[in-house]
Amino acid sequence: MTQVQRVTPAIASAFSASESAAKRIFFEEVFPSVDGGRFPVKRIAGEPVEVWADVFRDGHELLAGCLCWRRHNERRWNSTPLKFHQNDRWHATFTPQVPGRYVFALVAWTDAYGTWRRDYLLKRAAGADLSVEKTAGRKLLQQVKATPEAADTILRAITEFDDTSSDEPLLREELATTVRDLEPRPDLTWSTIYPLTVDRARARAGAWYEMFPRSQSPARGRHGTLKDCIARVPEIAALGYDVLYFPPIHPIGRANRKGKNNALKAGPDDPGSPYAIGGAEGGHDALHPQLGTLDDFRALVGVCRDHKMEIALDFAVQCSPDHPWLKQHPEWFKWLPDGSLKYAENPPKKYEDIVNPDLLCDDRATLWSALRDVVLFWHAQGVKIFRVDNPHTKAFPFWEWLIGEVQAVDPEVIFLSEAFTRPKIMKALAKLGFSQSYTYFTWRTTKAELTSYLQEITGYPEREYFRPNFFVNTPDINPYHLQPGEPWMFKSRVALAATLSSNYGVYSGFELIEHMPVPGKEEYLDSEKYEIRNRDWNKPGNINAYIAQINTIRRANPALQQTANLRFLPIDNDQVIGFVKESADHDSAVAAAITLAHGRREFWLHFGDVMIGPPGDQRHVRALENLVTGERRALEWGGTRLTIDADADPALLFRCLV
Amino acid sequence: MTQVQRVTPAIASAFSASESAAKRIFFEEVFPSVDGGRFPVKRIAGEPVEVWADVFRDGHELLAGCLCWRRHNERRWNSTPLKFHQNDRWHATFTPQVPGRYVFALVAWTDAYGTWRRDYLLKRAAGADLSVEKTAGRKLLQQVKATPEAADTILRAITEFDDTSSDEPLLREELATTVRDLEPRPDLTWSTIYPLTVDRARARAGAWYEMFPRSQSPARGRHGTLKDCIARVPEIAALGYDVLYFPPIHPIGRANRKGKNNALKAGPDDPGSPYAIGGAEGGHDALHPQLGTLDDFRALVGVCRDHKMEIALDFAVQCSPDHPWLKQHPEWFKWLPDGSLKYAENPPKKYEDIVNPDLLCDDRATLWSALRDVVLFWHAQGVKIFRVDNPHTKAFPFWEWLIGEVQAVDPEVIFLSEAFTRPKIMKALAKLGFSQSYTYFTWRTTKAELTSYLQEITGYPEREYFRPNFFVNTPDINPYHLQPGEPWMFKSRVALAATLSSNYGVYSGFELIEHMPVPGKEEYLDSEKYEIRNRDWNKPGNINAYIAQINTIRRANPALQQTANLRFLPIDNDQVIGFVKESADHDSAVAAAITLAHGRREFWLHFGDVMIGPPGDQRHVRALENLVTGERRALEWGGTRLTIDADADPALLFRCLV
Repeated sequence: MTQVQRVTPAIASAFSASESAAKRIFFEEVFPSVDGGRFPVKRIAGEPVEVWADVFRDGHELLAGCLCWRRHNERRWNSTPLKFHQNDRWHATFTPQVPGRYVFALVAWTDAYGTWRRDYLLKRAAGADLSVEKTAGRKLLQQVKATPEAADTILRAITEFDDTSSDEPLLREELATTVRDLEPRPDLTWSTIYPLTVDRARARAGAWYEMFPRSQSPARGRHGTLKDCIARVPEIAALGYDVLYFPPIHPIGRANRKGKNNALKAGPDDPGSPYAIGGAEGGHDALHPQLGTLDDFRALVGVCRDHKMEIALDFAVQCSPDHPWLKQHPEWFKWLPDGSLKYAENPPKKYEDIVNPDLLCDDRATLWSALRDVVLFWHAQGVKIFRVDNPHTKAFPFWEWLIGEVQAVDPEVIFLSEAFTRPKIMKALAKLGFSQSYTYFTWRTTKAELTSYLQEITGYPEREYFRPNFFVNTPDINPYHLQPGEPWMFKSRVALAATLSSNYGVYSGFELIEHMPVPGKEEYLDSEKYEIRNRDWNKPGNINAYIAQINTIRRANPALQQTANLRFLPIDNDQVIGFVKESADHDSAVAAAITLAHGRREFWLHFGDVMIGPPGDQRHVRALENLVTGERRALEWGGTRLTIDADADPALLFRCLV
Repeated sequence: MTQVQRVTPAIASAFSASESAAKRIFFEEVFPSVDGGRFPVKRIAGEPVEVWADVFRDGHELLAGCLCWRRHNERRWNSTPLKFHQNDRWHATFTPQVPGRYVFALVAWTDAYGTWRRDYLLKRAAGADLSVEKTAGRKLLQQVKATPEAADTILRAITEFDDTSSDEPLLREELATTVRDLEPRPDLTWSTIYPLTVDRARARAGAWYEMFPRSQSPARGRHGTLKDCIARVPEIAALGYDVLYFPPIHPIGRANRKGKNNALKAGPDDPGSPYAIGGAEGGHDALHPQLGTLDDFRALVGVCRDHKMEIALDFAVQCSPDHPWLKQHPEWFKWLPDGSLKYAENPPKKYEDIVNPDLLCDDRATLWSALRDVVLFWHAQGVKIFRVDNPHTKAFPFWEWLIGEVQAVDPEVIFLSEAFTRPKIMKALAKLGFSQSYTYFTWRTTKAELTSYLQEITGYPEREYFRPNFFVNTPDINPYHLQPGEPWMFKSRVALAATLSSNYGVYSGFELIEHMPVPGKEEYLDSEKYEIRNRDWNKPGNINAYIAQINTIRRANPALQQTANLRFLPIDNDQVIGFVKESADHDSAVAAAITLAHGRREFWLHFGDVMIGPPGDQRHVRALENLVTGERRALEWGGTRLTIDADADPALLFRCLV
C-alpha cells in the first residue's frame, strides 16, 4: 500500500465533532425566502408566517425539529415544533404580532428515542428477541435532561418498566413526544437564518391621492398653503383615500430655476420645480415659507389622522444649487474639471436646477447620516410614509442602510420606491427594503399585457418582496391612453388599479379628466411641476363619486387589500379582463370583470378550476352578488353571461357566494 | 432636530470604500449553479461551459465584466469578457480541457469611458455644448493603466485630439474596447465563487455489465477466478459494454455467514455473501484467495483496457465480524450495552453477517483515512470506477470528503451511488459528489411514470448535478415485470434503459432471461449473493445479440451519450413512448419509439414543436432512417405512422434527417 496517503493533522481537525455533525442534516427549498436569505421576505403584522422546508439526513433515523424565530435584536428565540408533511417536507407557522425586523431559522436533530421506539415496534411485530432493545430504550430515557413536569412522566415509565418488565410503559406516544424535545441532541443543526420584514397593514393596502400643496388655494393666483390643504382633507377623506401624498414641500432654489413647461429660464413669478430642493430659506428639513409653518404641518398631520388618513412626503435626495449643503459640505458634491458643479442629467436630458450629492464620496458617512436625519426629522413631525424620488439613480447600499436605520427607530415607516427603470433594478430596490414600488401598470393597457405583468409580480419569488403600487398617472406621466380624455377610460383605469393592486394612486386632476399633453409626449401640458394650478374640484364631469364607490368597496372587502391573492378568470372576450381575489382568512372573495375598450360587451365569465375556501374545504362559487347594485345571479356550468357598458360602468365587481 | 440620531463610528466604518462599492453591483440568477454555489455543477472535459447571469447596478452607467475561472487549486484565474444579451442578462463561455475541480465567478465594474462615450454621443446628437465633456473624456483616457500595446492606441487618440480638437479620435469603438479592460476599476465586484466538477466522458455515458467473478468458472462447482474473468472479457467487450462491474472481491467472513437464499445458517460449503467483507485472510485491501492474486487482478485490468473496457469495483464500507479492523480498531465500531456488536439492520431486516463502522466515532479521522486508503489502494491497481454500496446509510459529510480526497489524487475516478432510498436523499448524495446515481427506473414501467420521472431528473436543477444510471435489474432487484420471463419485456426494458439514459446497466443473467423470484418478492431465487452460479452464457433464447445491437447504436450516435438532452415526442398510444435526443454539437439526432406492452401496435409518432439544430438554425425533421434496417421514411404533417411488433423488436430507433 505504498501509493496511499497517510492521515494528516489537517484531516483530523477538519472533522471535529461539531463540524461533521453540523453537515449531516440538510435544509433545502426553504420557503419563504429571497435569494437564499440574502434579502428579507415581507409580511404583515398579525398574520401567520407559514414556513416550509425539506429537512433530512442520511440513514433511516427519525428527525425532530422546530422553527425558531425572534425580532432580530432580541436575545431569546421563540420556537414551535416542525410538523412532518410528506417526502421529507416539514412545516411550521408563527405569527409576528408587531411590525419590525425578524429572523427565523429551522433547527433539527436526530430523534433517538423516537427512532428506537419505531424500530422496537417493527422488531416486535417481526417476533424478534427484544431484551437488548429494551435495555437500550431504558438507557435512552435515563439520558433525558428532563424538566420538572417531564421528569414525572419519564420516571413513571422507567419505574413501571422495571416493576413489570412490560414494554408498554416505554412505548407510550405521549412519552415519545415528551422525550423528543428533551433528549440529548448531539447533532442539533441550524439552517441559514432567514430575515423577515414585518410591516403594518398600510404597507400592503392603501389608496393614495397625490397633490401639490401650493395648488390648493381656493383663490386664483394665490400660493396654496398647508392651511388650504387642511381645509381640503375632509372632502378627500370622504372619497375614501387613505394616503395624502405631497411632492417636496421645501424651499425651492433660484439658480437655474425652471419656468413654465420646463422652460430653461424662469419668469420672475415662476415658483420653480419643488424638486429643486433648498434655498436661502433652508434645505430638506425646512418648509417652503409660502406653505406655512411646522405648526401648520403638524396640525395637518393631526387633521389627517382624525380623518383616518396619513400624510406621505416625498424624499428626494437632490439639491438645488442654492441648497445650504453646497456651502456647508462642498465635499458631498461632484465638481467638474472647470470647477463648476455637475448637474443632474440623464443624457440627453439635463436637470440644470438640481445637483445630486455623491453618495459614494469620501465623506459619505456624514452625508448618509444627514439624509437619514432628514427622514427622521419629518418622522418626528408625524410622517410615517415616504415616497422616494428616483432611488434607482442612487447607490444601492445607501437604501438598504437608510431604510434599516429608519425602521430601527420606527418599524411602522413605509418607503415607496419611485423607480421607473429596468425591471431587475426595480426588483432589486424592493429587495433592499422598499415597502412598496411603482410599477409599469401606468403603461400596461391590453389584456395580454396586464395578465402577464400581474402574473410576473404576483408570482414567486416576486410576491415575497415586491409590493406594487399602481398609479394611474403621475405629475411626470400623462399616458397616451388618457390623452383623448374619455371618461370611461379614466374609470376603467382607476377600477383596474384599485382592484388588481391593493396599493394604488391617483395624481390630482385625474378625477377631473385632465388630459392635455405636451404634444407628442406623455407629459402634462402646463405641468404643475413648474407652475401653480387652481382647480374647481367639483367641476362637472368629475369622477369623484365613481372613485369613492370603488374605495368604499375596497375598504369593505379584505380580499381587495391584497395583491398576490390574484387569480385570473377565463373570459371569452379579449377586451374584458376577469379575476378573483380571496381574503387571507377565506371569509370573503371578490370577482371582477373590467372592460378595456369602449362600447357595450356581452361575454361569459367562467370560474374554470378556481375554487374558494381554505385548503381542505375548497368550494365552487355558486353565485355572484353585484357589489354596487346588490343584484344576485347564480352561476350555471361554472360561469355566467354578463354585459358591460363602458359608459355606464366599465367595471363589474361581485361578492362570491359559495 | 432634537429627535435625530447622530452619526456613530459604527456607521462610518460599516460603509468604508470597499464595502459599499462591493455591494453596488448585483449578480443574480447565475446559471449554472446548485443551491447558490454550495454544491458543484457537473460538466464533461472538453465541452463548453456556458455561464449566464443578471449583472446590474443602480444608475444609468454602463457595466463591463468578465467570467473568471480556474482549476480550484491553481493561483491564476483565466478570464473571458462577459457579453451583453438583453434585459441586464450577460453570458460567457469557457471550456475546461481536463477533468478536475474548477471554480468560476463573475466580475463586473463600471465602464467609465464607455459611459462617457455613450453620453457624449447622445449629447452631441442633441446639439449640446461639449467642451467640458471633451476634457472629461481626455482625462479618463489619461487615467488608464495601459499595457504596451494599448498605450500606443490610447496615446495616438490623445495626440490626435490635442492636435485637431476633433472629438473623432476619442470616440473610436476599438479605443472604447481597449480602455474597457484597462481603466481604473474602483468598484470592481466579484460574484460568489461557484464550484464545478469536470469529469471524463465515461462519467456521463457507459454501458455497465455486472457479474460475480466467483460465478465465472466454466466448470460446474468450481469457484470462479479472476483468470476465468479474463477469459470472458473478449466476449463481453464484443457485446459493446464499457464497464465490467464486480461486487466485492475481498475475503468473506465466517461469523454468522449467510447460507443459500439468505439462510441464517450457512452450510459448510456455502461461500457467504461477498458483502460480508473481511476475514482471517484480510480486509478491504485484500483479494478473496480463491479468486487469485493481485497480479491476476492487474492482468484483468490490462485485458479490459485492451478491449476498451474498464473494471468497476464495489466499495462497501461494512465489515464482517471477522474483519481485521474489529481487533485492530475496536473504537471504530458500536458496541451494545451487553458488550456485543451492533449488527447492521434496517428494522425489521437484520444483517447478522455485517457490522458498520461508526463513521462519526471519536476516532473518525483515522477511520475515514483508512477508508480513503482502501479506495486509493484499488486505484493504484488500475481501478477508476467505484460503485458505492448503500451510501445513504453513512454520514453525508464522509462522502463529500472521501470523493474530494480521491479526486484530488485522480480526477478521473468515477463514483456511482447505489442508493435506492427517498428521492431527496438520492439527490443530496449526487450533490455531495457522486458522479452517477442509481435511480427508480428499475420500477418505472408505465408511460406516465417514465415520462414524469425522466422529466424530473433531466429538468433544472437536477440535470446540473444528477447523472442517472438506469439498471434493468441488480442482484438485489428482480422486478415484478421481469418475473414472467417474457423476452419482449427484457428487450423493451434494456432498450428503454440504454436509450433514455446514457448510463445504463445489466446484471448478468438478465441476458439469459433469468427471472425466477423468491415467491412474492422482487428478489432472485437462489440469489448469487449467497451461492455460486454456473451459467451457459450462450444459452438458447439469450438476447445478447439484441443488446449488442443497441450498444453499437449507442456508440455510433453521440446523441445517446447524454441524458439531459431528452425531449419526449407525442405518440397517440399510451403503451408506446417516444422521444428524441440531439448531440451537443447538433450533428446527430436520434428518435426512438419503444413499446411498453406486448403485441403489435400501430401509432403516429409526431414531432410537434420539436426542431433540431443549433440555436438560430433550428430545423424540422424531414425524414427518419431506421438505425437497424436502414429504411428511410419521410415525415408528413410533422409525423409518421409506425408499427411495432414487441416480439420482433419492441424498440424502433431512427436517425433524424433535417
